[in-house]
Amino acid sequence: MRLAVMGAGAVGRAVATLAGEYGHEVIGIADSSGATLGEALDVDAVLDRKTRTGSVGDDEPETLLDAEYDVLVEATPTTLGDAEPGFSHAVAAFERDRHVVLANKGPVAERYEDLRAAEAASAGELRFEATVAGAIPAVHTVEDVGPARVETVRGVLNGTANFVLSRMAAEGLEYDHVLAEAQELGVAEADPSFDVQGTDAALKCVIIANVLREARDDLEGSLSLADAAVSGIDELPASALELAANDGRTVRLIGEASPERVRVGPRLLPENGTLAVTGTQNIVQVETGHAGRLNLSGRGAGGPETASAVLSDVGRLSPN
Amino acid sequence: MRLAVMGAGAVGRAVATLAGEYGHEVIGIADSSGATLGEALDVDAVLDRKTRTGSVGDDEPETLLDAEYDVLVEATPTTLGDAEPGFSHAVAAFERDRHVVLANKGPVAERYEDLRAAEAASAGELRFEATVAGAIPAVHTVEDVGPARVETVRGVLNGTANFVLSRMAAEGLEYDHVLAEAQELGVAEADPSFDVQGTDAALKCVIIANVLREARDDLEGSLSLADAAVSGIDELPASALELAANDGRTVRLIGEASPERVRVGPRLLPENGTLAVTGTQNIVQVETGHAGRLNLSGRGAGGPETASAVLSDVGRLSPN
Repeated sequence: MRLAVMGAGAVGRAVATLAGEYGHEVIGIADSSGATLGEALDVDAVLDRKTRTGSVGDDEPETLLDAEYDVLVEATPTTLGDAEPGFSHAVAAFERDRHVVLANKGPVAERYEDLRAAEAASAGELRFEATVAGAIPAVHTVEDVGPARVETVRGVLNGTANFVLSRMAAEGLEYDHVLAEAQELGVAEADPSFDVQGTDAALKCVIIANVLREARDDLEGSLSLADAAVSGIDELPASALELAANDGRTVRLIGEASPERVRVGPRLLPENGTLAVTGTQNIVQVETGHAGRLNLSGRGAGGPETASAVLSDVGRLSPN
Repeated sequence: MRLAVMGAGAVGRAVATLAGEYGHEVIGIADSSGATLGEALDVDAVLDRKTRTGSVGDDEPETLLDAEYDVLVEATPTTLGDAEPGFSHAVAAFERDRHVVLANKGPVAERYEDLRAAEAASAGELRFEATVAGAIPAVHTVEDVGPARVETVRGVLNGTANFVLSRMAAEGLEYDHVLAEAQELGVAEADPSFDVQGTDAALKCVIIANVLREARDDLEGSLSLADAAVSGIDELPASALELAANDGRTVRLIGEASPERVRVGPRLLPENGTLAVTGTQNIVQVETGHAGRLNLSGRGAGGPETASAVLSDVGRLSPN
């Protein structure tokens, strides 16, 4: 398929670089300041240009939306509330009967019903595996089990917060110290609030909750971040982890999504329990009826990891 | 879809009982001594008859293969070598352009090429999720990642052996004692050799290896049980587990499948490591290129669990 890649951060770059390996062709890349379009695009050259000049091209970014593509890969930064400009990018693709594969959580978490409505009025399909738990096929597994048969999904969905907590637990260090370490390692951003306050995990849970809801006739409408009960790890003292350890327990930032609600917060867990993954790992626990509890764990974030989720989604689209 | 259920053991019973919940209709059930066919079959009555009389019906079992079904669910006991009669059941369905969903490992492990050839000559499709790791969508996840992108699959694939080892490790008991306990709990069969000698795990690994192979042009032919290097747990003394524990390790029966080979045997693992699942749990570890390592764990066996895998497969078939 021909991919138009909107967004040239870690995910967009990796999608553009790996697309050929998956048998797809990149016909354009755009970032916030420019775009380069063309058949048989020299992806390395375009990304190199971005590294050197800060932009992927001279054309206006929006020109990408008018190009001849099969799939719009929307990988611009997640924005809340109206989820713009990501939401409008998706709508533009649907209006032209193109497929939309999102890595951007904003439209899926904040405007799910509007997004599905745009899809319904289009010949294009919507997919968003890459918005939840990176390389772990969480959305697809829930779809495959059957969302109506999934009661709850819970897990560790933010690698930054999990790294910080598992380092605090392992070393007895204070939060500020470990956060600085995480930032040095590139595991936490300069402004880490999205991760450590639980917002990122909450968006992912809202997305899963919306998938569970739409399979249930008795539930109307979709959830958004505003509906989630969220607390983060930024006020957790090292003493709390020490207290937990004395009792054979540890603390992790756990998100939980059910059709009715979303909750994110630090939780006490058995020290070596399934949910107590370490480092930047993610784990998704799917509670089904007859199949019992299913655990999926692996790398939750990263350019190549998230790109593999995007490219898996491209592969799941109905053929043209 | 209309299901013909061949086999009325734990899996066949559960498939017949749960089919309605998944929106499917059972139009016949057969066991080794009889069959009952009919639209709007009273599944409970038929299974009750089996419980009371030892057979599901008065008709000859093979009459099921001539019935009007969309999907043959083959859930007769796994047999090795020529994999009969399961293999012939599958071929009979393919010859009538019907779909085949297998819970029976025999044909998939021992005669993979022949089975795929029968499928290729048919309008029907072959699926076999239920042959590997029960409720864990192992086969489907490998297919979804792309078998050519999966380098290795390893894991704990036999709940009986894992229960015995994890109980030996936890309680310091000898093998015979724990095996007797497992038999009392219904976790091990009266003749447990298939499980404790590693044969069951090896068959599952051979199946996965065949899925990986057929995606690679440079590899000819399929593997069978004879190609696997297999050792079991039946000669492991409790002292070996004690020795391992002194070093923070434990032992589990681990199967490993790559395109080139299959190995099953007891392996030393970190005590609290990911692969060291406890009880009858299974875990499947998928090594991919860009997505890294993916862990899938959950219930590996049981009537409802395996039935949910069968019914998931039915849902994955192309619509008629």
